[in-house]
Amino acid sequence: MKRKDYIAKHLKSLIGSEKVKDSQDFCISYSYDATPTGGKGIPDVVVFPETSEDVSKILSFANEELIPVFPRGAGSGLTGGAAPTTGGIVVTTEKMNKILEIDEDNLGTLVEAGVVTYNMQMEVEKRGLFYPPDPSSYKYSTIGGNIAENAGGPRCVKYGVTKDYVMQLETVFADGTITNLGAKTVKSVAGYNLKDLMIGSEGTLGIITKAYLKLIPAPEAVRTAMAIFNKVEDAATAVAEMFKAKIIPTALELLDKNSIVAVEKYAKLGLPTDAEGLLIIEVDGYKEIVDMLIEKALQVCKKAGAKTIKKASNEKEREEIWKARRQLSPAIVQLKPKKINEDVVVQRSKIPQLIKETYKIANRYSIMVVNFGHAGDGNIHVNFMYEPHEEERVFKAVRDLFRFTIEIGGSVSGEHGIGFMKKEFLPLEVGKALEKMIAVKKALDPNNIMNPGKIFDI
Amino acid sequence: MKRKDYIAKHLKSLIGSEKVKDSQDFCISYSYDATPTGGKGIPDVVVFPETSEDVSKILSFANEELIPVFPRGAGSGLTGGAAPTTGGIVVTTEKMNKILEIDEDNLGTLVEAGVVTYNMQMEVEKRGLFYPPDPSSYKYSTIGGNIAENAGGPRCVKYGVTKDYVMQLETVFADGTITNLGAKTVKSVAGYNLKDLMIGSEGTLGIITKAYLKLIPAPEAVRTAMAIFNKVEDAATAVAEMFKAKIIPTALELLDKNSIVAVEKYAKLGLPTDAEGLLIIEVDGYKEIVDMLIEKALQVCKKAGAKTIKKASNEKEREEIWKARRQLSPAIVQLKPKKINEDVVVQRSKIPQLIKETYKIANRYSIMVVNFGHAGDGNIHVNFMYEPHEEERVFKAVRDLFRFTIEIGGSVSGEHGIGFMKKEFLPLEVGKALEKMIAVKKALDPNNIMNPGKIFDI
Ligand SMILES: Cc1cc2nc3c(=O)[nH]c(=O)nc-3n(C[C@H](O)[C@H](O)[C@H](O)COP(=O)(O)OP(=O)(O)OC[C@H]3O[C@@H](n4cnc5c(N)ncnc54)[C@H](O)[C@@H]3O)c2cc1C
Ligand SMILES: Cc1cc2nc3c(=O)[nH]c(=O)nc-3n(C[C@H](O)[C@H](O)[C@H](O)COP(=O)(O)OP(=O)(O)OC[C@H]3O[C@@H](n4cnc5c(N)ncnc54)[C@H](O)[C@@H]3O)c2cc1C
Repeated sequence: MKRKDYIAKHLKSLIGSEKVKDSQDFCISYSYDATPTGGKGIPDVVVFPETSEDVSKILSFANEELIPVFPRGAGSGLTGGAAPTTGGIVVTTEKMNKILEIDEDNLGTLVEAGVVTYNMQMEVEKRGLFYPPDPSSYKYSTIGGNIAENAGGPRCVKYGVTKDYVMQLETVFADGTITNLGAKTVKSVAGYNLKDLMIGSEGTLGIITKAYLKLIPAPEAVRTAMAIFNKVEDAATAVAEMFKAKIIPTALELLDKNSIVAVEKYAKLGLPTDAEGLLIIEVDGYKEIVDMLIEKALQVCKKAGAKTIKKASNEKEREEIWKARRQLSPAIVQLKPKKINEDVVVQRSKIPQLIKETYKIANRYSIMVVNFGHAGDGNIHVNFMYEPHEEERVFKAVRDLFRFTIEIGGSVSGEHGIGFMKKEFLPLEVGKALEKMIAVKKALDPNNIMNPGKIFDI
Repeated sequence: MKRKDYIAKHLKSLIGSEKVKDSQDFCISYSYDATPTGGKGIPDVVVFPETSEDVSKILSFANEELIPVFPRGAGSGLTGGAAPTTGGIVVTTEKMNKILEIDEDNLGTLVEAGVVTYNMQMEVEKRGLFYPPDPSSYKYSTIGGNIAENAGGPRCVKYGVTKDYVMQLETVFADGTITNLGAKTVKSVAGYNLKDLMIGSEGTLGIITKAYLKLIPAPEAVRTAMAIFNKVEDAATAVAEMFKAKIIPTALELLDKNSIVAVEKYAKLGLPTDAEGLLIIEVDGYKEIVDMLIEKALQVCKKAGAKTIKKASNEKEREEIWKARRQLSPAIVQLKPKKINEDVVVQRSKIPQLIKETYKIANRYSIMVVNFGHAGDGNIHVNFMYEPHEEERVFKAVRDLFRFTIEIGGSVSGEHGIGFMKKEFLPLEVGKALEKMIAVKKALDPNNIMNPGKIFDI
């Protein structure tokens, strides 16, 4: 029997044949994720577990037979996290998509890992509750994928990232052991914090099957505004000054000139295409204070040189403002046939420096760069846009960008993770800590079956 | 040469003799911490490193020679964390107490591990910034100790615990490797989250030498009130209802009857000694909303049956209210010659159940129980007060308490850690995750030199 057939046969007998797919079609459709370069291998089988016990059986079998396992949520990752690097088993959580509990007394929700973030958010919002983390992919990405990448989003400036909302995780380790990590209580210091170790581990340490998430009361009111600058440096300065002035906005998104031009061309929003910088500012909280907050934030923008300010006076106008940000992804892919989207992050005071450097780098290699992103977090999506024949130069530009970011004390990834795309740069950033990461990997997955070839090679 | 002398001589030549103390006096004074049962061994030497390189040299030596190392901050821990279990080296961070940077642009501060929490807080508050975690021991405990225990305090209801403020840690691992874990940026997902693994690891994985901590703008205004209840269940219900009503107070502290009686006798504050429950409620934020917030919180108390309500109208009255909480520790030790202070934590909705059970247990063994603590976090300090001859019964009571807490989904420690005091109960709570914790320990400290005999035995 061929290995592929052997694996499929065994898995079918373990968890039921309806949960195991091994046709060529299936295997190919699960061989890549949203990463532009595509995947690196075609899996032998794709499995659709429905319970933690299913997952445990799959992993025990894989661990004994030394078969690579590739955990997968919605496959929306941008660094190749869910894309197989070789043959093996893709474990998708698609069928584990139930909201098991919404606890209004303790402000928490228990979900299966495959729940789509947006679906959960809608359910809790019906009850006046709020789950802040909002990666732009929230309409299809899963909670399990968000946790495995520690996803962020615009609202994370004020509210923090996915990690700040995960209280307990049911995790199946490589040997099939099912564990509960963390606690449903607000605090707990019983033993090592393996829960937070799992968060951001990109499927390399185990499979998350359930999560108990913290919810908070929904904010009463929100105010949104847009500030337009002649110079992008001024916009970046406004971001840094905002925090110095002790204002913590809910969201603070930046668009540079190329972003503005691209989105205006695509969506016709009436933006001035000669402007070099645009900030979207949102504040929320009690209704008594939101007007004061947005005024303060706009004062900072004016002082930093904003030439136009637009405040939303109703939900429709708010939507209009956000359109400039939401239409960016589809808009910029019109610019060039290919793009590499990086998500470097620096301290907020260093954003002006970072932005300036991206233009220098783009100039150096004569390629196009489009910057936008979660400036309030210091997290800028630097997009190099190019023709296929420019690829080599683009890779050089990416390297220069990463080197510069690390040099000024930043990080090569604010939210997209390392996957197989950024492995080369991890040692530059984390130095000797890498040895310790590898030691932990070997301790928890001694046979290296979990998502091999991701984050680092061992 | 005796082993003790050999160790001292070597360490002196490695880091300088003025940083190594091996007299009997020194060794005995560093053989215990604030834990009532005292320590379990007397160290051979006590070392006072001044730099990360000193720490690295000490650990490399200890690791090669298989000498146990006991990290120590201020020794204020309550579960024996800093108390040696055998001979070996106590490494105290007393001399590493510098504030290296306060970054007002990025809202962060870089400190050495031995900085006293309060000292740092005073420095940042001068600049309008705020470091919320406030363990009651903050006037002497160190940031390193706070991180190693993931300390909490009254303000953690709204602001979160120590973990929520640690961005980057310089950590020396058992083999002497100096690493930087985490990042100074708001977000970073580069590699495994070893930073959060270190937090709460009680000195068993390495020594923290520096920390870059997140600061936030200081709140503009604060309001404080006290609510007094006939029945403790009503006070506990008010706590649960507060969150259901979507009010997140800054602090929400509970005192039960024995606490009220003890503190009134000790400090003469004019509290009604027939009351069975007392809540201290504090809210903070923008000046426009604090009055509204405290009113809402007090409405909840009234609905839950509060018979008296007292609002502080100035700072002096606020201090008066907090005295009832602050004088508790000295007050209750007057009640009986011995005490065991537990810090179980449950979901907020289960506080009434927990409190009721503590009385049942106290009844069962005819001992005195005093309950108070961070009710807003579900974290109750259950104090069993006793005469020396009652000790055996008290230990049984503690066991019953832990079993019950775990049964209702709680945790045996909200903030004091496991140390050597609660090792027996950790497996009951964490189940199979314990194997994985031990695997991580073995990976990062293969010779088991770091704080052996703490958290679990291996
Ligand atoms: C248009 C677009 C916009 C995006 N915007 C953002 C953004 O604003 N912020 C942001 O952070 N990201 C963003 N992303 C990236 C991506 O959506 C996130 O990383 C998301 O969290 C991935 O979720 P997923 O369910 O698709 O996971 P997948 O892509 O399927 O997997 C991601 C990683 O998690 C692992 N994994 C998945 N499920 C589990 C599990 N149950 N247990 C263990 N490991 C698991 C996989 O092995 C892989 O390593 C964006 C992506 C796109 C395409
Ligand atoms: C009166 C009183 C009130 C208290 N109130 C609270 C409270 O409200 N909340 C709370 O959380 N705790 C409280 N505690 C417990 C204690 O103060 C905290 O755990 C505190 O964080 C310990 O700090 P420390 O510097 O004294 O550490 P130590 O007691 O010296 O050490 C504690 C643990 O940390 C390890 N450690 C210390 N420094 C380092 C380092 N640099 N690197 C690695 N490991 C290290 C030690 O090995 C030990 O395991 C209280 C204690 C007392 C006596």
